[in-house]
Amino acid sequence: MNIFLAEFIGTGVMILLGCGVVANVVLEKTKGNNGGWIVITTAWALAVFIGVVIAGPVSGAHLNPAVTLANILLGKMTVSLALWYVTAQFLGSATGSFLVWVMYKKHFDATSASDLKQAVFCTAPNIYHIPSNFLSEMIGTMVLIFTILSFTDVKVNNEATVGMGSLGAIPVALLVWVIGLSLGGTTGYAINPVRDLAPRIVHALLPIKNKAHFNIRYAWIPILAPLTGATLAALLFKLFQHSN
Amino acid sequence: MNIFLAEFIGTGVMILLGCGVVANVVLEKTKGNNGGWIVITTAWALAVFIGVVIAGPVSGAHLNPAVTLANILLGKMTVSLALWYVTAQFLGSATGSFLVWVMYKKHFDATSASDLKQAVFCTAPNIYHIPSNFLSEMIGTMVLIFTILSFTDVKVNNEATVGMGSLGAIPVALLVWVIGLSLGGTTGYAINPVRDLAPRIVHALLPIKNKAHFNIRYAWIPILAPLTGATLAALLFKLFQHSN
Amino acid sequence: MNIFLAEFIGTGVMILLGCGVVANVVLEKTKGNNGGWIVITTAWALAVFIGVVIAGPVSGAHLNPAVTLANILLGKMTVSLALWYVTAQFLGSATGSFLVWVMYKKHFDATSASDLKQAVFCTAPNIYHIPSNFLSEMIGTMVLIFTILSFTDVKVNNEATVGMGSLGAIPVALLVWVIGLSLGGTTGYAINPVRDLAPRIVHALLPIKNKAHFNIRYAWIPILAPLTGATLAALLFKLFQHSN
Amino acid sequence: MNIFLAEFIGTGVMILLGCGVVANVVLEKTKGNNGGWIVITTAWALAVFIGVVIAGPVSGAHLNPAVTLANILLGKMTVSLALWYVTAQFLGSATGSFLVWVMYKKHFDATSASDLKQAVFCTAPNIYHIPSNFLSEMIGTMVLIFTILSFTDVKVNNEATVGMGSLGAIPVALLVWVIGLSLGGTTGYAINPVRDLAPRIVHALLPIKNKAHFNIRYAWIPILAPLTGATLAALLFKLFQHSN
Repeated sequence: MNIFLAEFIGTGVMILLGCGVVANVVLEKTKGNNGGWIVITTAWALAVFIGVVIAGPVSGAHLNPAVTLANILLGKMTVSLALWYVTAQFLGSATGSFLVWVMYKKHFDATSASDLKQAVFCTAPNIYHIPSNFLSEMIGTMVLIFTILSFTDVKVNNEATVGMGSLGAIPVALLVWVIGLSLGGTTGYAINPVRDLAPRIVHALLPIKNKAHFNIRYAWIPILAPLTGATLAALLFKLFQHSN
Repeated sequence: MNIFLAEFIGTGVMILLGCGVVANVVLEKTKGNNGGWIVITTAWALAVFIGVVIAGPVSGAHLNPAVTLANILLGKMTVSLALWYVTAQFLGSATGSFLVWVMYKKHFDATSASDLKQAVFCTAPNIYHIPSNFLSEMIGTMVLIFTILSFTDVKVNNEATVGMGSLGAIPVALLVWVIGLSLGGTTGYAINPVRDLAPRIVHALLPIKNKAHFNIRYAWIPILAPLTGATLAALLFKLFQHSN
Repeated sequence: MNIFLAEFIGTGVMILLGCGVVANVVLEKTKGNNGGWIVITTAWALAVFIGVVIAGPVSGAHLNPAVTLANILLGKMTVSLALWYVTAQFLGSATGSFLVWVMYKKHFDATSASDLKQAVFCTAPNIYHIPSNFLSEMIGTMVLIFTILSFTDVKVNNEATVGMGSLGAIPVALLVWVIGLSLGGTTGYAINPVRDLAPRIVHALLPIKNKAHFNIRYAWIPILAPLTGATLAALLFKLFQHSN
Repeated sequence: MNIFLAEFIGTGVMILLGCGVVANVVLEKTKGNNGGWIVITTAWALAVFIGVVIAGPVSGAHLNPAVTLANILLGKMTVSLALWYVTAQFLGSATGSFLVWVMYKKHFDATSASDLKQAVFCTAPNIYHIPSNFLSEMIGTMVLIFTILSFTDVKVNNEATVGMGSLGAIPVALLVWVIGLSLGGTTGYAINPVRDLAPRIVHALLPIKNKAHFNIRYAWIPILAPLTGATLAALLFKLFQHSN
């Protein structure tokens, strides 16, 4: 598999599973209807786990332009390669959310509330307040990126590196779990520009009845705030690494 | 232990635990009554974990004809061996669901709703719609098989392989967890032909009062859709593996 | 630490945490009041995890006469050593449940229902029916013991054994989790004679107002059924191991 | 990164995530409102996981003066170094809880109950009773410290030590999870002096409307009881280690 395909499929399956759980919890007549925050956050954590399992060995499993940006800032990849990553992530996210609609089509039909139908695709804050919403997404992403950069490998005798295979994707799943549980309460933790924008566009294009509007006034926050958070996290990490 | 016994016992314990949690949540007067989707999906994930722990070292722990089919398609096993696998899985599934009835007998007696009693044994969609239901089971199984094929081993210095023992069964449990949480909301995620058919037949044979009918109109979907999904996943995996 | 102390402390902490979660969920005015089956089963799984972490390196962490009996039957320990194990387990269980009463004393005072107060200490079936109750505890313990015997170690290159340290206790925690979720719905899954009997006696001795009676008609089931289940599991495991 | 910075950031992120989940569950109009004890305890467990991931490789990740005290008592660190640890922990805890207020500001504004707003920052018992409350915090911390001291490393062939990297932080997360689920029901499990005191002071200083008072009558318990528990655990561990 090449890098583009890995990011595309990894992000696609992640978004299928991530937007899928929201469909299961918020749409009418589903098995998981009204399953609660524990259901949503557990599934999103595991959705990232699966995305990392699939894409990790090939592309390093960014699955998120905020992660890609942090890698650029830390000199680990070129901007031109990053554009391939982000394009694949965007297309994967769009495809994944489209598949959620295909699977849950009858439940979209059975649901009247337009905000719930849109919630399957993209985030919205419970209280609109631009500075607070921006800070929420920025802080959530800072925790995501700073912790990812802090992850350490398994080593034998402090020398031989052990590649943990699929088990190695567990720490990032635990990280996403707690970000959702603890920091997702305000805006719904996009913490990933393509996770929000691509499904938002898919929602706008799909033939859904009684549809909520695109919400352009808010849509820029889950893009710019995560990128700002990733930048700050990368800078802080670099700064702390060299301090003594 | 031989391969037949491993698949039989592994599937049997998996179905005992998997159908068991449904009994605990949907039947009357149980300790876990109305425990919610998180209880059901967590237990099904762990049920697969236990099945893999038991059967893994001997048979590779298919526990599911969809997994066996993917192995055939990828040239990893012969059809005649596969027939042994599937027979063992079918008998294991039947035995496991029978034991659930034995354990929860008094709670079946205390429950009047026939659809809930049948739900302990086999799946039913919340909204009947053949194409949607087929797609749901197919997509769920595609995620299952594609991810299983993507799992990677633990390695020391990129050379020595580490057999992770029982810990190695954790990734597949996490996979089944998220499929349930995210994609199980429409049809109840059979994603395994014997998981659905064998208990369905057991239910039809058991002396349960006020029993729901066999539902032949739906029963073929949790058989054919998972097999279709497994085929597509195996083909896509092969295709992607060779692309650059 | 010697073996007696390891079994005593391991079982003690396990029961403190296990009976503790029941206190938190069923007694009045607690933080976890009415937290549900997911709270109880998760904590019991982790209680076993902690017990195994503490006692494992010294005694192998039986923490349960059913496990000790299986070890005798498989020729892994003498009966005289086993008596030390079971004595330590019994005293640990009694001590752990006493500490739960000390911690939750004010909440026992605030709770009027005598069955809920007793439920903190020992199990009771939701539907009394001796054969069904016996079968429930027997089958639950069979799954416990058979799976424990099926656990396999981590190995490098199929040769060197890797002692997984505290991480090695995770599979048994997952096992106890799913037994609770799936098979605990009828009798409350004692699956351990000292887990039930010792706290039952402590409950009978403590100065608790409006106290439920000892329930001698039921108390023998969580003793004999787990021992029967352990015997069957050990025999089946031995039988299957030698079959080809 | 130096030791001071590691303890500061590790504790800061831990408290941001830990107090964050309480905000998400108890404040008005949040996504996780009324999410239940499973949400709170899962997030606190994972909050500790993240703190250990970040600080572990540099400072050993105490994140808690009770852990630092146990290290002093066992002769593993000097008092003067310990003062640096505790100062960093205190400042980290204050900063983390301040960030929770920044993120959830609009939800604090939307919440009228003063006790719920204070609960985001610091603990309070559900039933005030000094001896019981002290015992609760003491026993909870004893389990924490005694189990941490019991953790064992991963080893190859009983010789080579394996540093498990970020996966190595999982056992302590499971430990904190079960302490919360089982022993947190009385006082809300501070089990860490800076986790309670620093946010309590931050709460007292912040411009929050209709604010609860500092509660000096209780505030000393989550400081002294954990330190007492840590002392007892360290002594018992030492005692047991040398017994045969």
